[in-house]
Amino acid sequence: MVVGLVETAVPTAKSTISSVVKKPTFLSSDPIINVARGDPTIYEPYWKKMGDRCKVVIAGDEFMSYFCNTMNLCWFLLPELDNAIRTLHRVVGNAMVDDDRFIIVGNGSTQLFHALLYALSSPDLPEPINVVAAAPFYSSYPEETKFLRSKLYKWAGDANCYDKDEPYIEVVTSPNNPDGSIRGTVVNREGGKAIHDLAYYWPQYAPITSKADHDAMLFTFSKATGHAGTRIGWAIVKDKVIAAKMVKFIEVSSIGVSREAQLRAAKILGVIADDCRNLDLKGENFFEYGRRLMSERWGKLRELGMKSNGVFSLPKYPRDYCKFTGEYTDSNPAFAWLKSNEVLNCENLLRDESKIITRGGPSFGVDSTYTRVSMLSRDVEFELLLERLAAIKGTVNGN
Amino acid sequence: MVVGLVETAVPTAKSTISSVVKKPTFLSSDPIINVARGDPTIYEPYWKKMGDRCKVVIAGDEFMSYFCNTMNLCWFLLPELDNAIRTLHRVVGNAMVDDDRFIIVGNGSTQLFHALLYALSSPDLPEPINVVAAAPFYSSYPEETKFLRSKLYKWAGDANCYDKDEPYIEVVTSPNNPDGSIRGTVVNREGGKAIHDLAYYWPQYAPITSKADHDAMLFTFSKATGHAGTRIGWAIVKDKVIAAKMVKFIEVSSIGVSREAQLRAAKILGVIADDCRNLDLKGENFFEYGRRLMSERWGKLRELGMKSNGVFSLPKYPRDYCKFTGEYTDSNPAFAWLKSNEVLNCENLLRDESKIITRGGPSFGVDSTYTRVSMLSRDVEFELLLERLAAIKGTVNGN
Repeated sequence: MVVGLVETAVPTAKSTISSVVKKPTFLSSDPIINVARGDPTIYEPYWKKMGDRCKVVIAGDEFMSYFCNTMNLCWFLLPELDNAIRTLHRVVGNAMVDDDRFIIVGNGSTQLFHALLYALSSPDLPEPINVVAAAPFYSSYPEETKFLRSKLYKWAGDANCYDKDEPYIEVVTSPNNPDGSIRGTVVNREGGKAIHDLAYYWPQYAPITSKADHDAMLFTFSKATGHAGTRIGWAIVKDKVIAAKMVKFIEVSSIGVSREAQLRAAKILGVIADDCRNLDLKGENFFEYGRRLMSERWGKLRELGMKSNGVFSLPKYPRDYCKFTGEYTDSNPAFAWLKSNEVLNCENLLRDESKIITRGGPSFGVDSTYTRVSMLSRDVEFELLLERLAAIKGTVNGN
Repeated sequence: MVVGLVETAVPTAKSTISSVVKKPTFLSSDPIINVARGDPTIYEPYWKKMGDRCKVVIAGDEFMSYFCNTMNLCWFLLPELDNAIRTLHRVVGNAMVDDDRFIIVGNGSTQLFHALLYALSSPDLPEPINVVAAAPFYSSYPEETKFLRSKLYKWAGDANCYDKDEPYIEVVTSPNNPDGSIRGTVVNREGGKAIHDLAYYWPQYAPITSKADHDAMLFTFSKATGHAGTRIGWAIVKDKVIAAKMVKFIEVSSIGVSREAQLRAAKILGVIADDCRNLDLKGENFFEYGRRLMSERWGKLRELGMKSNGVFSLPKYPRDYCKFTGEYTDSNPAFAWLKSNEVLNCENLLRDESKIITRGGPSFGVDSTYTRVSMLSRDVEFELLLERLAAIKGTVNGN
């Protein structure tokens, strides 16, 4: 039996913890818990409760054309989604969306990351442009950059170690995936280009301290609201030439983005914005709900950490004033960035000892004492995760 | 005023027909007709008539996970869509879909073409694999192959001229875009690989003579039913390793395909299959409707051709026995492949003389006496197209 996600590629490296762990604490019949991927099913109960307000109905003859709006640079962007994205950012205050900014919709922010690599590189350069990110970085950036062996761009590793006097693109994820830290560029050379991945810059994960105002910013419906299956992401871009190149990329890759998906994203983002503005709302708006849930989960995890006598460490985050909620709030990242203080391979420890599948440090450019644990699973899976983590402590200490 | 499509890039080359054409026959206030792209809006009235039968309703909490079916190699394929695709192919008889074939869904067949280039190439080869197609070939293949400057594959032009003793992939479109011809591979060397793009192998466009049974076949919802805005394509693949590499490509490119889009495609393909099997159906099934419409349009266009005293030529297609309809039928391709017999640049003639935007021969690897005209526009636009074409004859002949 498997609870939650089954990864397509489960790590197969052998355990290195046999000297520490006496015996497995799980039975062979116990379910595997897969928290390697950040599948955001945590929010399902909220959307279930919303009932008809978020329902979309699509007739058989709707959305037949390739074209959404031929007057817009991004001709495959549904005007309702454009409007909903701008409205929500204005309500939350997490990004500048003045009318001169271009919104580009993509098949998830993943496609937009590819589109930005294409848009920020140039066939006229003699060498591929270097793509860097400060470790620990999102584990998919290296593969996404490398897999087609493009002559336009190449992966150049940890931005902290970048010392070449060559053109580069720095990818900045803030709050960071995997470790939740708030980040800026680290290379900072003249002519350097940046992609700001702000997937987690929403009130449930971090205090909203200012409107982000970078040249190229990425957001994703998956992490904002939990609708990962919809595959909708968006970029906010200042420069028209870059925006046009991104549109070209998405045209050549997939001739645009599903209008059904866009309609649904527009509907749900619209409902959230309405609720955030409605002070008479009965119950919580989505971000209040999400923040309460994430805060409760982090409270339980930290409590466990305190009881574990130093088997694991978790990062600490500074409180900050959140302009959206109007109070000082904690960071409650979408992932727990676990460091093992007793074994060399934290991913293997969790897998072999507790049948918990996570994603280890080396995928993120750091050592294997670290591993990333999704905090976005369903309740039943999260409670089981806590139970298993609590049991490890006993085993490691020989209790 | 613009009728129908506005292309993102309208051809800007100067006209070469001034010596032939006396004066433009249009007024500056006349609308531009854009039939350069095959936007399949022709089928809208049919789907409008279908009303609630094709309606989909999606609640706020549906489709939140990245995963559709973790037991399937293609873990982001909605089981309902898998089922609807196989059922429809069985009903129509246009492709083998035995249970050992893999169905891979993509963001349009465009994404699947990219996925196949990736899956059929290898990082272990010293040189990029050659990608060829017999001219006239679909105008997007060269750009799709070249634009990321991959070291895995490269565009190598017209398959008819291919004489290298190197690994290659031949792309075969049948019925062909732009010219509607029925095609097979032309290179036929040992070890050669092929992609069969069967976007137009449906009863409204061509007689269904046998079940296609190639290693890798592409189909698209856009051209099968006219739902281009949904961005759903599918591949039918024999080899598991190739299928797995395609799934990997789509994971790294866009982490799967919108489930809203898949649900809608499943619904509509399911309704078509039901109607095709229902002999008591009141009215026509979709393919009968589509075939009647296409046949009427081709009849009108050919009639015009006969009256034009040789200004334009159109290809002729052999009748063949269609196993789906059970009778001998004509080909009624999605595009008219127009050859000008009087001027060197047919695209420019139509643009400058009649404000008709088409896509000229050089985009398809042949000379500029040819141009491609979409036959899939809305009725009002098609009638206007006929009117304008009829008027050209008069001008050219000086009547």
